[in-house]
Amino acid sequence: MNAPDKPKPDLFFDTVTAYQKTAALKAAIDLNLFTLLADGPLSAKELAPKANAAERGLRILCDYMTVSGFLTKTGQRYALTRDSAAFLSRKSPAYAGSATEFLLSDPLIRAFNSLSEAVRRGGTAESKEGSVAPEHPMWVTFARAMGGMMVPASHGLAEIIALDASRPAKILDIAAGHGVWGIAFAKKYPRAQVVALDWAPVLQVAQENARSAGVTDRYSVIAGDAFATDLGSDYDTVLIPNFLHHFNRADCVRFLKKTHAALKPGGRVAIVEFVPNPDRITPPQAAGFSLVMLATTPEGDAYTFEGYASMLAEAGFQPPSSHPLPASMNQAVVSAK
Amino acid sequence: MNAPDKPKPDLFFDTVTAYQKTAALKAAIDLNLFTLLADGPLSAKELAPKANAAERGLRILCDYMTVSGFLTKTGQRYALTRDSAAFLSRKSPAYAGSATEFLLSDPLIRAFNSLSEAVRRGGTAESKEGSVAPEHPMWVTFARAMGGMMVPASHGLAEIIALDASRPAKILDIAAGHGVWGIAFAKKYPRAQVVALDWAPVLQVAQENARSAGVTDRYSVIAGDAFATDLGSDYDTVLIPNFLHHFNRADCVRFLKKTHAALKPGGRVAIVEFVPNPDRITPPQAAGFSLVMLATTPEGDAYTFEGYASMLAEAGFQPPSSHPLPASMNQAVVSAK
Repeated sequence: MNAPDKPKPDLFFDTVTAYQKTAALKAAIDLNLFTLLADGPLSAKELAPKANAAERGLRILCDYMTVSGFLTKTGQRYALTRDSAAFLSRKSPAYAGSATEFLLSDPLIRAFNSLSEAVRRGGTAESKEGSVAPEHPMWVTFARAMGGMMVPASHGLAEIIALDASRPAKILDIAAGHGVWGIAFAKKYPRAQVVALDWAPVLQVAQENARSAGVTDRYSVIAGDAFATDLGSDYDTVLIPNFLHHFNRADCVRFLKKTHAALKPGGRVAIVEFVPNPDRITPPQAAGFSLVMLATTPEGDAYTFEGYASMLAEAGFQPPSSHPLPASMNQAVVSAK
Repeated sequence: MNAPDKPKPDLFFDTVTAYQKTAALKAAIDLNLFTLLADGPLSAKELAPKANAAERGLRILCDYMTVSGFLTKTGQRYALTRDSAAFLSRKSPAYAGSATEFLLSDPLIRAFNSLSEAVRRGGTAESKEGSVAPEHPMWVTFARAMGGMMVPASHGLAEIIALDASRPAKILDIAAGHGVWGIAFAKKYPRAQVVALDWAPVLQVAQENARSAGVTDRYSVIAGDAFATDLGSDYDTVLIPNFLHHFNRADCVRFLKKTHAALKPGGRVAIVEFVPNPDRITPPQAAGFSLVMLATTPEGDAYTFEGYASMLAEAGFQPPSSHPLPASMNQAVVSAK
């Protein structure tokens, strides 16, 4: 198409039209395409009656999803990739398609529609407080949509923290949302008591999930603003999953001090976060997450490991360690009191 | 992050959030970022007063644009890539940033917001005729926004067709839009007469561009529906750039027959198109273009070379040849009467 030394418009064109990739994936999930292909390859003609959609529409959508890497095509038949089978078929226990309900929810889409203004201001252009406004309804959507995707990572975190399963333990789950992080601890440690903190309407979702997991008897809640509410005390572990990125550094330190006070001696905090390298441009997903915070919060950011280490030191914690989490863009930053 | 044999949610996450890439690119263009960096690397702090934006906003946006491949970062300073310098700085003659005004225009965004319904129907869910409705205003936006990006390809096409510059020639430019394709012929061939056909409001843009190119004395227009209007006759070359993909095969053949009749003996048609391979999944941009036609037209498609060859044969043309065009996702399919 081009001489190798000539400038190419391909990246520009791909990026201008990237929203079409999102739309195609959303349509494929809406039409149940990945679940329909879970039992084996099908052609557009074979899919049409099952999807209640036009053969022509399915042919074009399936070709596009093949180009995008979600399907493979052999002859006229389309098949799931390994990753699509794991995350996009509703028959998979790791089904993550519901994440679109949060990641493509109106408040997020609107925030990105006003991104230029957010760059000018240096913070969300949506409202004074953006997504950190008290009881913002998007966190109920988050809790309903995002739990499934976090299950493997939550089990990974419960392994990393490695409590003594034979002893009682008290776990606090900050901004629990779907509750999946704390529930993983309740399931792995049969004597653990889990306390979930979030806005009251969000806690209903966490409680439903605790009920499904059969851990209600060891599951309690604190409703309210994590910065203002009494957290309780003598926790073995405080989980802070994807919470600190919403705030500026000073507020993060303030919250870590409060966490420190709530831990028993030797207790640990586990911060789960998008953690970019010091260059702030790698790894791509963690580094790119800063933009979501610019679009949706007044002062939030994706902080580096060194950034968290410095906040933790200021709050009185030991030097932290960093741990990858399975099937996740998140890392765990773990530090002892 | 994952064992190599474990499923990864990365592609899913990247694609769900792909709309954020589009939004970031749009913000960078809106804020004139690429033009501000055209004279050399700058930090977010140095950019802030020039862009009239917050340092923090620019730091996060520039990091994101670095992750996305549009900038490089050395220390705290950001620099243009070769491709960004060529296509996204307003100081570049190949500036293509205005393409966002069409590619992100409301009718296109709306069409992708109703993509699931388009798949169900097998054609645009926006209106009965979608983008091929008579005098649809999006084609004026197209003409104003998309000309710049097509200039290198239009010069490439004028080379490929290789008319005898010493002789008079008559060129018809179908659905001329910005007029760039026909104007390239008028510039390269000093005795060529170019006739541009499009809706009347669109032709104003083509005529402005012909004036800027200094070819008005050899530039005339036909306003109206290409299928219904008299095309004239005895053309040496008929250009059909990015037009046939809006229609079903039968209508394409019908239009090619009409083209055939308008050509002089030995005259040639040059179809400029997104041309996928027979597998319909490569090359990615040409194959992916079918989805735009599904979203925006009742029956349009990206046809293969074999598809065009068969339509051309049915319309009475010789077997065609295929030609890449510089700095373009388009190919030229050329055939003689």
